[in-house]
Amino acid sequence: MSIIDLLPSETPLKSIPPGEVVFAQGDSGNVMYVVIEGEVSVLLDGKVVETVRAGGVVGEMALIDSQPRSATAISRTRCLVSPVDAPRFMDLIGREPEFALIVMRVMAKRLRRMDAEH
Amino acid sequence: MSIIDLLPSETPLKSIPPGEVVFAQGDSGNVMYVVIEGEVSVLLDGKVVETVRAGGVVGEMALIDSQPRSATAISRTRCLVSPVDAPRFMDLIGREPEFALIVMRVMAKRLRRMDAEH
Repeated sequence: MSIIDLLPSETPLKSIPPGEVVFAQGDSGNVMYVVIEGEVSVLLDGKVVETVRAGGVVGEMALIDSQPRSATAISRTRCLVSPVDAPRFMDLIGREPEFALIVMRVMAKRLRRMDAEH
Repeated sequence: MSIIDLLPSETPLKSIPPGEVVFAQGDSGNVMYVVIEGEVSVLLDGKVVETVRAGGVVGEMALIDSQPRSATAISRTRCLVSPVDAPRFMDLIGREPEFALIVMRVMAKRLRRMDAEH
């Protein structure tokens, strides 16, 4: 199941032009984005470490731990995303526990990638 | 709130003597442990990277993505832990969305530590 299928029909949407900084490493911010269409590059210290496509998420770290952004996200193409703030996040998890599992799988994948590069 | 407070009263418990390998890096396994008492060392490639105490969790990675264990866990002291398999995990998240958030915070902390060491 894709995380997109778990978003309620009244979900807020945001269109992002190509080449826009969605958020920058070190910024404060507590919104996660579910990518509905397009591609978002994730950069660590200026280096692209991941390309997130439809059904992926970016920005979950700062949402979860309220720390500054751990990475930079830049739209590679025109994107359609759904912003998820803390109250919506808890609401989504309450409605669909699977939503939490999908976000955790994203985090697990990133942790394993970091481990491999360690 | 501690994750221990979110465990239901009928939660299974397991006592572990000091110095026991709870799980080893590379093993298959799909059970997470909530530490109720004692301390568990987490080792990456033989090096201790973290000490998990009461209210912490170990083994969430393999539970979430069904991949081999990403690290080794050894009891530093006698421990009391609660094993959480996939069905219990989904049940706990469904009952208490906060449970998911606490596990995600653990993962976020580990990701930021890896980022810092990168």
